[in-house]
Amino acid sequence: MNLAYKILNSHLKEGKLVPGEQICIQIDQTLTQDSTGTMAYLQLEAMEVGHVAVDKAVAYIDHNMLQTGFENMDDHEFIRSVAKKHGITFSKPGNGVCHQLQLENFSKPGQTLVGSDSHTPTCGAMGMIAIGAGGLDVAVAMATGKYYLQCPSVIQVNLTGKKAPWVSAKDIILKVLQELSVKGGVNKIVEYTGEGIATLSLTDRATICNMGAELGATTSVFPTDERTLDYLKQQGREADFKEMKAGEDATYDQRLDIDLSTLVPMVAKPHSPDAVVDVKELEGMHINQVVIGSCTNSSFADMMRAAKILKGRKVAEHVSLVIAPGSSSILAMLSENGALADMIHAGARILECGCGPCIGMGQAPLSKGISLRTINRNFKGRSGTNDAGVYLVSPEIAALSAIKGYLSCEFEDDMYLDEVPSTPFIKNTNFFINEYDPQTEVYMGPNIKPVPRGDKLVNEIKGKVVLKVGDNISTDHIVPSDSKLLPYRSNVPHLAKFSFCKVDDQFYNRAIENGGGFIVGGDNYGQGSSREHAALVPNYLKIKAIFALSFARIHRSNLINNGILPLVIDQQGYDFFNDQDEYILLNVKEAVEQGKDVVVKNQTTNETITAKLTLAPREKVMILQGGLLNAIKELGGDF
Amino acid sequence: MNLAYKILNSHLKEGKLVPGEQICIQIDQTLTQDSTGTMAYLQLEAMEVGHVAVDKAVAYIDHNMLQTGFENMDDHEFIRSVAKKHGITFSKPGNGVCHQLQLENFSKPGQTLVGSDSHTPTCGAMGMIAIGAGGLDVAVAMATGKYYLQCPSVIQVNLTGKKAPWVSAKDIILKVLQELSVKGGVNKIVEYTGEGIATLSLTDRATICNMGAELGATTSVFPTDERTLDYLKQQGREADFKEMKAGEDATYDQRLDIDLSTLVPMVAKPHSPDAVVDVKELEGMHINQVVIGSCTNSSFADMMRAAKILKGRKVAEHVSLVIAPGSSSILAMLSENGALADMIHAGARILECGCGPCIGMGQAPLSKGISLRTINRNFKGRSGTNDAGVYLVSPEIAALSAIKGYLSCEFEDDMYLDEVPSTPFIKNTNFFINEYDPQTEVYMGPNIKPVPRGDKLVNEIKGKVVLKVGDNISTDHIVPSDSKLLPYRSNVPHLAKFSFCKVDDQFYNRAIENGGGFIVGGDNYGQGSSREHAALVPNYLKIKAIFALSFARIHRSNLINNGILPLVIDQQGYDFFNDQDEYILLNVKEAVEQGKDVVVKNQTTNETITAKLTLAPREKVMILQGGLLNAIKELGGDF
Repeated sequence: MNLAYKILNSHLKEGKLVPGEQICIQIDQTLTQDSTGTMAYLQLEAMEVGHVAVDKAVAYIDHNMLQTGFENMDDHEFIRSVAKKHGITFSKPGNGVCHQLQLENFSKPGQTLVGSDSHTPTCGAMGMIAIGAGGLDVAVAMATGKYYLQCPSVIQVNLTGKKAPWVSAKDIILKVLQELSVKGGVNKIVEYTGEGIATLSLTDRATICNMGAELGATTSVFPTDERTLDYLKQQGREADFKEMKAGEDATYDQRLDIDLSTLVPMVAKPHSPDAVVDVKELEGMHINQVVIGSCTNSSFADMMRAAKILKGRKVAEHVSLVIAPGSSSILAMLSENGALADMIHAGARILECGCGPCIGMGQAPLSKGISLRTINRNFKGRSGTNDAGVYLVSPEIAALSAIKGYLSCEFEDDMYLDEVPSTPFIKNTNFFINEYDPQTEVYMGPNIKPVPRGDKLVNEIKGKVVLKVGDNISTDHIVPSDSKLLPYRSNVPHLAKFSFCKVDDQFYNRAIENGGGFIVGGDNYGQGSSREHAALVPNYLKIKAIFALSFARIHRSNLINNGILPLVIDQQGYDFFNDQDEYILLNVKEAVEQGKDVVVKNQTTNETITAKLTLAPREKVMILQGGLLNAIKELGGDF
Repeated sequence: MNLAYKILNSHLKEGKLVPGEQICIQIDQTLTQDSTGTMAYLQLEAMEVGHVAVDKAVAYIDHNMLQTGFENMDDHEFIRSVAKKHGITFSKPGNGVCHQLQLENFSKPGQTLVGSDSHTPTCGAMGMIAIGAGGLDVAVAMATGKYYLQCPSVIQVNLTGKKAPWVSAKDIILKVLQELSVKGGVNKIVEYTGEGIATLSLTDRATICNMGAELGATTSVFPTDERTLDYLKQQGREADFKEMKAGEDATYDQRLDIDLSTLVPMVAKPHSPDAVVDVKELEGMHINQVVIGSCTNSSFADMMRAAKILKGRKVAEHVSLVIAPGSSSILAMLSENGALADMIHAGARILECGCGPCIGMGQAPLSKGISLRTINRNFKGRSGTNDAGVYLVSPEIAALSAIKGYLSCEFEDDMYLDEVPSTPFIKNTNFFINEYDPQTEVYMGPNIKPVPRGDKLVNEIKGKVVLKVGDNISTDHIVPSDSKLLPYRSNVPHLAKFSFCKVDDQFYNRAIENGGGFIVGGDNYGQGSSREHAALVPNYLKIKAIFALSFARIHRSNLINNGILPLVIDQQGYDFFNDQDEYILLNVKEAVEQGKDVVVKNQTTNETITAKLTLAPREKVMILQGGLLNAIKELGGDF
């Protein structure tokens, strides 16, 4: 058995380890961040459970820390109170980025983790199966200790050789992205093997696992070794060490070989993390901004390497360099060893420890500006500036280029930090709150609105088509996300007002006037981010069914979690719908229970079509009950 | 002569030093920040001048640093390019708060400074006359070295005795505010005298001068002495020292005596800086947030005292403590001496050096939350949370209360830092850019729109009344300011869309439809902040005259600067106007030139009234030319 399956197997509760099969695994740890966490905890609250059912659950605040209105701190206070009520560790704002903190403080070899953030796989560096999931899935894991997923296949990435001095862990994952593309990891686990691993520090491995998310992978995993033990020792957690490795004759579904000694510094061009070329190709490109930080590259070692390059030098006059260390511990260590002062003297702006620029919360570049960043994603507009170009690089390339004023890989010898000092970690326990009081009154400020709930399924559903759209509608179309709307992730009624606003600005009014209805879409409906709000909002607006030529996988699951019917139609079905007539779904309950097609009648013309609805057994229950929350309430946590 | 008049006299270019008379003084230094600076530099550009005419002009970036959209960095780049074109020192974002930086790097005893920020008087601690002014006035000062103002009277505040250990400079200015109120300083300079001064460090004095702005004072000033010299030595600037003091038999227009030994820690309650009571009175008040920073209390000494209290202790679990050191130098020094790590270990969030929470750019408190802040203003809603209560305190009270979790003045002995270490200042020269190239092409991103310009005055002006409002309309009503609109201070067309939106949401549409017109107001029209956008927006909308029962002083000047007629009417005149009829001003040019009343006719009823227009000679020119910019262009810089 490979390492990935070893860990899955030791946690398997339902199903078989066969790629594509639905399995259920036992979860040891959960994490949330505040942008997805508010909704996850509203859902947890709705389940009416007591102490969480996992060994360790942590609620981080790292996304919404600008606090330009009351909404953010209201959300923080809500999460703090829920955490206390259910025995969840609360990480105060300012403590840092969830993945960096989870790795430093709680990661344990051989354990499982689900987190409501797509970069949860970071802890794969510790020999864990760490998976990003929707908020409701994480809420269910907290309530029941269980997580359902499609059993992935496993890609072996075999590392040999040793990277050259100016090659970084970032370049390794950029190389993997170049080879496999942003779709290369879908429904797969990336397992790293080979003697090259020993040359990589634990945080190097964390960078690689972190950005495995950009492959679309379920997760990534490294075996544990001496370097894992070293890292745990620095944290004062050597007792947590456990050897985790693949069996001698482990098999894999796919293989990629990388000789580390052949790698050079690389860069991902706008607007995709897999648009990777050698830095050499773009050398000399004028830049306006450099950002060092994010869950991908904000470790102590990353910061020390950047500081060494900046020390005694000066950031180019036309460049704004911002640095956000990954955790308050790292910030304190950099402060105590002088590296922070080196950065400041060079002219670097020091941001609060958090996600910040990576998620578009601040530091939006100049119009048409060029920004070099050590982050993980460079999608168009994500920086907050729609016409800016974001290039993804290593911290070393970022720091050097900030000084030069243009993209460069011409390092000087005295910039090199051969061995990052193995400083004992300074724990910042004062940022972590561990309280448990089931009598805690949950704080609900005016920005916290209840989770929308569906109704039990009935056999006949009437309504109008309140929106008809084309192909490739993304969750960004359904519920936009930007620095203005991100503070409202716990406020579905507010988000609803902006639903589809870039497609049809009357959608919201029409949905309200009609008391809900249906949406008709084309191919690949609901693509893009895993945002469950793209299903919560339609649920709130009483949209009972979506008809589409096809659905994106995660969005389909989110619709079912919300008790909304994802009905598949053909082109004839697509043409059947108009925005005038009233429609009736004649046999919905029957169709769900018996696996039949749904019959849809146009009440004006009396014409009918059929729409397909293929549901797994557990999905059937959710649809019948009007969503996952209702199903759990009705059938208990064991559902 | 008192010190204030000594400095004014040595810089006097026009007029006599008689309270109430218009005078013109020579300006040695100017400063701008980015929120007012964008417009000031657009105005400077419009004057088509070369190198600035002052010894030192500095352009700081400290307000708009969240950068949630492209607008902020566009503005930064615009300011950087203008600074280079005109020989202005550019302070990069991240360098810190303008007043702290000006004090550290450029303040010189005996000099004059005007700055486009109301807390410019901070440098009064250095024996300077430092005055806050509108952006256009600062632009004129940069272009011509001249500044026009109404000659103030001088209040003597005589300090005796020595403050007790836990009493702070903040408590002294809170005491002055308690005695004199927020209106007590209008058209006055506050001059500090007495043996108590020697017990105060230079940055203590800076805190006191800074918050003199809350008295409504023109400025505040301290004499120079050994402690001034000490501070300059620490900065490596002892050559700049000069003894500045009042004459032996100096006279003053008013006197206030304060015995420092009688003072206790104080707090200003919501929602006014003069709602001052002893901390004892409110001791035990539950708090949610504590903010240490802002131009008032972010010096090295302030930070060291807070750090000493926090060292080895823990911020209360329910409190969010945020700290923003005043400058990158201070941040680096705190980092190198371990104080920053002490703060972080206690659980403090470290924000970027800048204005941040003080101006509502981030860290908005919880709904109905209580926030203790070391800042200067606690107006309702300024924090970003309309129903929050902001209490103003010293850094010592703030740090102690953060640990306790409630407002407290029960210090422990080992919290006291008797003598702040006299560390040599670490200059951060890499944040300052000194470039001069008159050929520089000014960067104009899409957020930078031209300054609206008026037309030369004609004798007959026709139009409708597009808005009729009541008493006490503030500049906040005319052009709102919040974290959403602050990034648009260089974009008058965008701001215009929100003009009067809280009073009448159709105002903008009506003004556009009618191609301008008139506004009718009640008493005290244009009160509140000095924001010149409250005149720039009406100028852009082609509002030619405002009729009001009375005008606030600064807004009236801003209207004249923009070529808009501030016409005073009586109650009968107020009743004369309606929103239907067309009006005609029959003799405007004649009235201005000859000092007559303006005759206004209702073209439907043929009824007439008269409106008063009293203008100083220089104001007449501005009105005739269609505003100050036009006047300068027409008549040259010497106008």
